[in-house]
Amino acid sequence: MKRLLDELVYKTRKYTSDGKLASYIPELLKANINDLGIYIIDNRGNESFSGDYNKFFTIQSISKTISLLLALQDNGIEYIMGNIGLESTGKPFDAIDYTESQILRNHINPMVNMGAIAVYHMIKGKTYEEKFHRTLSLAKKLTDNKLVEVDETVYKSEKMTGNKNRAMAYLLLTHKIIEGSVEDVVDMHFKMSSLKVTCKELANIGLILANKGQNMSGEQVVAPKHAMFVNAILTTCGMYDGSGNFAIKVGMPAKSGVGGGIMAVAPRKFGIGIYSPALDRNGNSVAGRKLLENLSQELSLSIF
Amino acid sequence: MKRLLDELVYKTRKYTSDGKLASYIPELLKANINDLGIYIIDNRGNESFSGDYNKFFTIQSISKTISLLLALQDNGIEYIMGNIGLESTGKPFDAIDYTESQILRNHINPMVNMGAIAVYHMIKGKTYEEKFHRTLSLAKKLTDNKLVEVDETVYKSEKMTGNKNRAMAYLLLTHKIIEGSVEDVVDMHFKMSSLKVTCKELANIGLILANKGQNMSGEQVVAPKHAMFVNAILTTCGMYDGSGNFAIKVGMPAKSGVGGGIMAVAPRKFGIGIYSPALDRNGNSVAGRKLLENLSQELSLSIF
Amino acid sequence: MKRLLDELVYKTRKYTSDGKLASYIPELLKANINDLGIYIIDNRGNESFSGDYNKFFTIQSISKTISLLLALQDNGIEYIMGNIGLESTGKPFDAIDYTESQILRNHINPMVNMGAIAVYHMIKGKTYEEKFHRTLSLAKKLTDNKLVEVDETVYKSEKMTGNKNRAMAYLLLTHKIIEGSVEDVVDMHFKMSSLKVTCKELANIGLILANKGQNMSGEQVVAPKHAMFVNAILTTCGMYDGSGNFAIKVGMPAKSGVGGGIMAVAPRKFGIGIYSPALDRNGNSVAGRKLLENLSQELSLSIF
Amino acid sequence: MKRLLDELVYKTRKYTSDGKLASYIPELLKANINDLGIYIIDNRGNESFSGDYNKFFTIQSISKTISLLLALQDNGIEYIMGNIGLESTGKPFDAIDYTESQILRNHINPMVNMGAIAVYHMIKGKTYEEKFHRTLSLAKKLTDNKLVEVDETVYKSEKMTGNKNRAMAYLLLTHKIIEGSVEDVVDMHFKMSSLKVTCKELANIGLILANKGQNMSGEQVVAPKHAMFVNAILTTCGMYDGSGNFAIKVGMPAKSGVGGGIMAVAPRKFGIGIYSPALDRNGNSVAGRKLLENLSQELSLSIF
Repeated sequence: MKRLLDELVYKTRKYTSDGKLASYIPELLKANINDLGIYIIDNRGNESFSGDYNKFFTIQSISKTISLLLALQDNGIEYIMGNIGLESTGKPFDAIDYTESQILRNHINPMVNMGAIAVYHMIKGKTYEEKFHRTLSLAKKLTDNKLVEVDETVYKSEKMTGNKNRAMAYLLLTHKIIEGSVEDVVDMHFKMSSLKVTCKELANIGLILANKGQNMSGEQVVAPKHAMFVNAILTTCGMYDGSGNFAIKVGMPAKSGVGGGIMAVAPRKFGIGIYSPALDRNGNSVAGRKLLENLSQELSLSIF
Repeated sequence: MKRLLDELVYKTRKYTSDGKLASYIPELLKANINDLGIYIIDNRGNESFSGDYNKFFTIQSISKTISLLLALQDNGIEYIMGNIGLESTGKPFDAIDYTESQILRNHINPMVNMGAIAVYHMIKGKTYEEKFHRTLSLAKKLTDNKLVEVDETVYKSEKMTGNKNRAMAYLLLTHKIIEGSVEDVVDMHFKMSSLKVTCKELANIGLILANKGQNMSGEQVVAPKHAMFVNAILTTCGMYDGSGNFAIKVGMPAKSGVGGGIMAVAPRKFGIGIYSPALDRNGNSVAGRKLLENLSQELSLSIF
Repeated sequence: MKRLLDELVYKTRKYTSDGKLASYIPELLKANINDLGIYIIDNRGNESFSGDYNKFFTIQSISKTISLLLALQDNGIEYIMGNIGLESTGKPFDAIDYTESQILRNHINPMVNMGAIAVYHMIKGKTYEEKFHRTLSLAKKLTDNKLVEVDETVYKSEKMTGNKNRAMAYLLLTHKIIEGSVEDVVDMHFKMSSLKVTCKELANIGLILANKGQNMSGEQVVAPKHAMFVNAILTTCGMYDGSGNFAIKVGMPAKSGVGGGIMAVAPRKFGIGIYSPALDRNGNSVAGRKLLENLSQELSLSIF
Repeated sequence: MKRLLDELVYKTRKYTSDGKLASYIPELLKANINDLGIYIIDNRGNESFSGDYNKFFTIQSISKTISLLLALQDNGIEYIMGNIGLESTGKPFDAIDYTESQILRNHINPMVNMGAIAVYHMIKGKTYEEKFHRTLSLAKKLTDNKLVEVDETVYKSEKMTGNKNRAMAYLLLTHKIIEGSVEDVVDMHFKMSSLKVTCKELANIGLILANKGQNMSGEQVVAPKHAMFVNAILTTCGMYDGSGNFAIKVGMPAKSGVGGGIMAVAPRKFGIGIYSPALDRNGNSVAGRKLLENLSQELSLSIF
């Protein structure tokens, strides 16, 4: 496996030159555009890795997976299905389509920003700070790393520039989909997006989703049904507006973040964490996506 | 004229029962739903009135006319035409259609909320408070009433519930169409919307627009070109999503507000102020609109 | 007047180089891109003209004015207002926005293609051929030219390439807004668009609209109310997606066609016909629009 | 297995009362609204069935799977991916969103009508009749039934009422995405939609998709990659605007038709055909969907 990973990293690193670093906050531009790393954990606990697997980056949208798992745990599947949209929006992750007096339910999909903000509100806790700390606790369990924490520089940058998220939160507030302070709910969003991880942390999340909610030690971190729920929504909406293409070419539940990470799930087999910060126009890691495509073919990982 | 107005008010008052009071803030629900009043000033200064012409109400969207006039004065026609949308949105006044990384220019039309907020930013002044006070000064001149002031109860209510306006302001901020504090710019919006007027104040604004910018005393309050600019945009977009219908049936530049007011312009002839708080589904005063339609036919006021 | 027109044509001809000929059918590309002509008729029958006023071109969308007048005559104002959209679409003339099981009423505006097709159906006649001949008869009266006829080459070209119009007609058929053969209704559309005119014919139409429905000889060709109805909708929607801008800069009811014509109305004063085939991106004649803007300023023709 | 199926059919038949028969053509209203049947074939060729498994119905949208497989065979994966949309539209199957001079690529998704029409054009053949006969041949192989044929009554009904499909085809023609006669391409669509099948035929298609393209006899009917391609797009877009919900609750690639059929794929395990004509508002069989949900849970068929 190690040799296969080395070979694939070597072969696909050149695709980094087809992408661009996320530029909406200066911190993300400090990444090394040629980085490419991968970490794989199989369901017996064997670990393999290659390339820049030990570089730190911010989790960004991949954290939507974690907050959704906690909202499922706190409210059950039926409540979540009744209160957010589960169909693809057919639009970019930050689109708003607001006419008459309703927000299109589709746009409150938990994999796009407006839905993610609605999900924070559903997580139990008296304040958004409490909600955040409960979500961070789950993040530590899922990543098998008690030291996971907020990257303060990225967090502050997000907070300074995140006005579109504030716009979304005010719309959600208008329609009583969320309550309380807009600044508090977007603060939780900025913190969750700024969690600092490496490929290994993502691989651990992926493994739990691959293993019906169990971690390497056999502990049931999340319910089997909730893991499967998340795998389903990752397959239909996890890779932004490139999810359909990804399902065909790669065929695995996966979530990407604009920090360059991809967390992928090979059900019953592997959890996979990838890092490569050069992004395509959908906001997905170019070389990371290509690496997953090759890996999926080599190991027949497609669920289809 | 007085007799004609009395007769028309008598005949059209019954239409108030076809409408509903604006309900988004409790204060507007306190209006008397059967009220109907009109005030007309001709270009020699003759004044006529009938019905509930002396009731106070809040100016609401009609103030968009005032802030646009000041922005024109501060920046000139070409700047305004280059920086806001002048075509109809084809959508309600509070619609947001935001896809990819651009706000549709159309939605920054000065007669809908998002455009009105952009206009506040264009008005000169170091702070939004200074911008507001300059606009209030112009409002006093246009209405020929130095006592025009903010209705504090309505203002506070608007401020408490106006989250959709905050959402719009954050989108405008994201795209650098406005700068500074969102709370400050929406505060100016809430204050401008809460100016307390009667039909007479609206008639005075209308007279100046009818008279190429001159008031009764012959003072040039705004430039002739700016008055004509506003009349043009009132005709195409002034009556919300009912502007096309209104142009056919009434044929005058006019602006309505959800407080129940309509300010109408009979170029070279009259300024007209109307009050009747029962609104149709587009947010226009039902009986007020009908009164204008009848008046337009009786006096051949259509510009077409 | 003649001298003024000569001077304005001389001054504005250079703007033809800012536009492009319509290219969707080869015939329109045969026009001379530098042509610019104008014809004005005042309400006492005095005629003035300058430039390429005697060149033939096809009427294109300006014919929508004629068919709407006949539909008004056949059905009355209330029926028309109840069955088509009168608000701006906020979109280009050939846009289709079709979701769920309804066509947005807005898109059946008589000044855009889908609405124009709906209007043909409302005109009385057992067949679309009969409807066309009745409309052609009205066209001859309005243009004061019994020889107005279809340009067979343009008509055949339109018929060969007009698939988007067929798409619209099939949507209207699906929703029972029109009946009968799609090929027949679009055939009427292609014929009406291909009527061959010069500036003089357009000026005559404009004069009747300016004169509350009367032609030079005092004959009431269309009802006063119908002329005013058309002037109103021309002001709000006549210049495609540039109607708001045109209202501000020119301030006259007007309709343009992609053949390069503009028919403009100075109520109570003039009918104006303009020809200049170089178009801006909204499909309006560049130099023609500029000529009208200058003329409007020189003669204070703005209705605002 | 037989006992399980009997039990599930018994338990879920009551859900038929929550749905409605498709009503756009009279023939579909003749179905028995309480029918529910299922047919399962495993990858060793064992067959099980229950309920109304032997009733005939029309395949409708499920045939989109067949024509896509042939287009893949004729053109290869890269060509198809480069020329049609693979992301969810986020809109109903017959939506058209057409602005400016482009059709949104998303709306040419092969699982919605506009995309299906584009796919017919990609299938090799000099005429649409030849394309249809080649597709029918593949349909016979996939269903393992040489007698599959068009239901003439349904076909004629579709042809009479299918104006929305003609509208879509004319739009595709306008943009040169298809060529030739609109009536011919929609005729192919109406024929493909009218193929008469039972649950068994659908189960056979499903088995080949489950078995990487091989049928029960081990014959490679379609390439493994093409089967996986189709499974991927069925998962993201196969159940109309309910695909996200279906992925979570059922977790199998599946395609529904308004005739009441569902073809489902349990990769490496089963092909499943279901019939129950009472539809939910998305156009999916209500009881059929519920039966699949229960079956998926009982046999752990979710791919997630």
